[in-house]
Amino acid sequence: MTSLPPASPLTTDLYELNMIQAYLDRGEDKEAVFEFFVRRLPPRRGFMLAAGLEDALTYLETLRFSAAEIAWLKSTKRFRGNLIDFLENFRFTGDVHAMPEGTACFPNEPLLRITAPLPQAQLVETRLINILHYQTLIASKAARMVLAAPGKVLSDFGLRTAHGAEAGLYSARASYLAGFAGAANVLAGERYGVPIVGTMAHSFVQVHDNEMQAFEDFARARPDGVILLIDTYNTEAGARKVVQLAPRLKADGIAIRGVRIDSGDLAASARKVRAILDAGGLKDVIILVSGGINEDVLQTMMREGAPIDGFGIGVNLAASVDVPAFDCAYKLQEYAGKPKRKLSEGKATWPGRKQVWRAYGTDGRMAGDILSVQSDRQPGEALIVPVMRGGKRVAAPETLATIRERGARDLARLPEPLRKLEPDASYPVTVADALKALAAEADRSTRG
Amino acid sequence: MTSLPPASPLTTDLYELNMIQAYLDRGEDKEAVFEFFVRRLPPRRGFMLAAGLEDALTYLETLRFSAAEIAWLKSTKRFRGNLIDFLENFRFTGDVHAMPEGTACFPNEPLLRITAPLPQAQLVETRLINILHYQTLIASKAARMVLAAPGKVLSDFGLRTAHGAEAGLYSARASYLAGFAGAANVLAGERYGVPIVGTMAHSFVQVHDNEMQAFEDFARARPDGVILLIDTYNTEAGARKVVQLAPRLKADGIAIRGVRIDSGDLAASARKVRAILDAGGLKDVIILVSGGINEDVLQTMMREGAPIDGFGIGVNLAASVDVPAFDCAYKLQEYAGKPKRKLSEGKATWPGRKQVWRAYGTDGRMAGDILSVQSDRQPGEALIVPVMRGGKRVAAPETLATIRERGARDLARLPEPLRKLEPDASYPVTVADALKALAAEADRSTRG
Repeated sequence: MTSLPPASPLTTDLYELNMIQAYLDRGEDKEAVFEFFVRRLPPRRGFMLAAGLEDALTYLETLRFSAAEIAWLKSTKRFRGNLIDFLENFRFTGDVHAMPEGTACFPNEPLLRITAPLPQAQLVETRLINILHYQTLIASKAARMVLAAPGKVLSDFGLRTAHGAEAGLYSARASYLAGFAGAANVLAGERYGVPIVGTMAHSFVQVHDNEMQAFEDFARARPDGVILLIDTYNTEAGARKVVQLAPRLKADGIAIRGVRIDSGDLAASARKVRAILDAGGLKDVIILVSGGINEDVLQTMMREGAPIDGFGIGVNLAASVDVPAFDCAYKLQEYAGKPKRKLSEGKATWPGRKQVWRAYGTDGRMAGDILSVQSDRQPGEALIVPVMRGGKRVAAPETLATIRERGARDLARLPEPLRKLEPDASYPVTVADALKALAAEADRSTRG
Repeated sequence: MTSLPPASPLTTDLYELNMIQAYLDRGEDKEAVFEFFVRRLPPRRGFMLAAGLEDALTYLETLRFSAAEIAWLKSTKRFRGNLIDFLENFRFTGDVHAMPEGTACFPNEPLLRITAPLPQAQLVETRLINILHYQTLIASKAARMVLAAPGKVLSDFGLRTAHGAEAGLYSARASYLAGFAGAANVLAGERYGVPIVGTMAHSFVQVHDNEMQAFEDFARARPDGVILLIDTYNTEAGARKVVQLAPRLKADGIAIRGVRIDSGDLAASARKVRAILDAGGLKDVIILVSGGINEDVLQTMMREGAPIDGFGIGVNLAASVDVPAFDCAYKLQEYAGKPKRKLSEGKATWPGRKQVWRAYGTDGRMAGDILSVQSDRQPGEALIVPVMRGGKRVAAPETLATIRERGARDLARLPEPLRKLEPDASYPVTVADALKALAAEADRSTRG
């Protein structure tokens, strides 16, 4: 992995700097506690899969303002010397607690808690939300696809219509940790070790005078794991060419691994292609499809028993088309030792440093969560763990393999009704008395 | 503007490298022509606004593989020496024709054409789509909001829930060129000169023992253009505090510029707040609102005459929530002098190097487009112009101000039915005989 430049620290909202200016002017830098959480589940969703933590921690560890960025900030003449000095010397020195990536999670459960001097905790708000929201969104979307198509090979083909380069990269990571097999994005291989996959485009067939020659050229250039795209002109004719070509390639030690279909009625085409391949002695050649795949299409194809081995999934994954955003927040929970919560109409939240305890049934399935204050004691597994102290990680970064195993484990132990695309029950998250008491205390101390 | 590192050139799909390997092995490097276009408009959309070209050109001009990236590619053992050499020495040397940013555009009209040796034209596919699709998506979404709220100040607050850092940056740029007044994203100011705007968060009020003190601290820290967030506890009470505070600040030469409301029934709250401010002698204090704003909400508020001066718009803009993606393509149009088109079921496209001629009515409004081959001659304004020759721009980059003026001009001359949120007519785009003839020629020469 090469060391990639992080996103500019100017990737923040101006109001963060405005507020920090006021804090620095008044010496308002006592300990603040903020938590990031999702407020509610969108329709048709029964759970989420936490993701983005490792990138969030890397952001906190490496957040620095370059000389050029400081010079630009000065040139705007918006900020006083004390703010410029603060940014020029910025190092994140706070603590972080979080739910490990790959954990199944629910609304109001904190995915990350920042404990730091107020100006620091405020500065990192925008980018932390930006990283955690999107990766959790995509991991949660990918998990639905994984659940809808057990045993199938799912690949992220979404880079081109992801919302920018970073979305494409994060989508590959988040879908892989949720159970995808790999991604087409080369950078995801270099940066995160996600297995990279790729076939060929229609243009490859079109530049050749005939399709058969295109197939042969491609197979000879890429002899390992040859996947041929067979729908440029006529899918069944394409499949028959594969049957014709296979013996000639085999004579040279080249095996065709699979074919891809990217248009038309994918299930119907796959059946016809399967029959042609089987009749031609190519029972081992797999069929991949792409184009318009989402979790509902996957479920339908599984129910119909379409002879499809793998799916390339693009924009429905990388832009999470049905639900392109969660309603989420990074909220002040405590300041200078006092619990805080907002009372804005329809947006009240639970105050304090929170913990989530999760119970499991005798069948090993998740049975219910209790949301309470960190200092409470409740039965079950405590999900929020320390991950950074004084600006340093408490342990080496988790490998993506470890996170992916956790994801698979949690998807396996979700209650059955939540594993459906239309969940017919909601997961019980109970608010403990200790947290209710803290909320009442916060409300009493709020003078408005 | 500091020189920001471009996204890694590994931001590409593996299949591009697979195909280039085959092309290099066979010396298949004749001139290829690809065009990027949107296939169809989503429901409720009558037009698009082209965007992303300048960033696409910068990508082409600066596309280089670093030593570390080359070393990583070698380490995968997937690619032969000829491909590694090609990437190591890569410079884009092709021509580019495009529709200028800010131009109103329609399905099947090329937004960009690449003319280059085949391996080059193939390498840049994924990232070009990634840049042009998202910026055009957001400019088109922003344009709807601008049309729905004439005369109002619209600002992009979407960075936090945009899909990654680059989406937040591109959203700020694309919405500004479509007529937004500015963005909260500080980097958009540094990188593109987008005016940056910002108020304060609820946390700012909450860390203070009382709201009045918070307002005063903020105003003294940020005396230019003070905007106070008044809904942390009770919006009307917040407005009354602003009335109380204003004279004290005025005595010190500080004017309160506005208030922001971020929760509850925004229109109803704005009416009550307006009355309180007016009664308190603060007729010049503006009201900004945020939270859940989209073009339909804007239209409703305009119809109701809600006393709101400006809107902060977040995820509905930056993730284009109702339509998070367009169906778009980067398709081979010609290779080695021969026209090409794909015939895949339901995905056939128009071949060749295309031009769009636009006619205007006597009222100055757009009257219809003709889509034909570049070599044809049709009446009207030719929209596709050369922007890069031999890998170099033919002119200095357009300023964002120029692009923004073009956007405003084209929004003003859209036919009236298309300016509605529910367009009740579609814009006429006629395919000329010359293009139909070329398609027939391409089909005849396709041996499949």
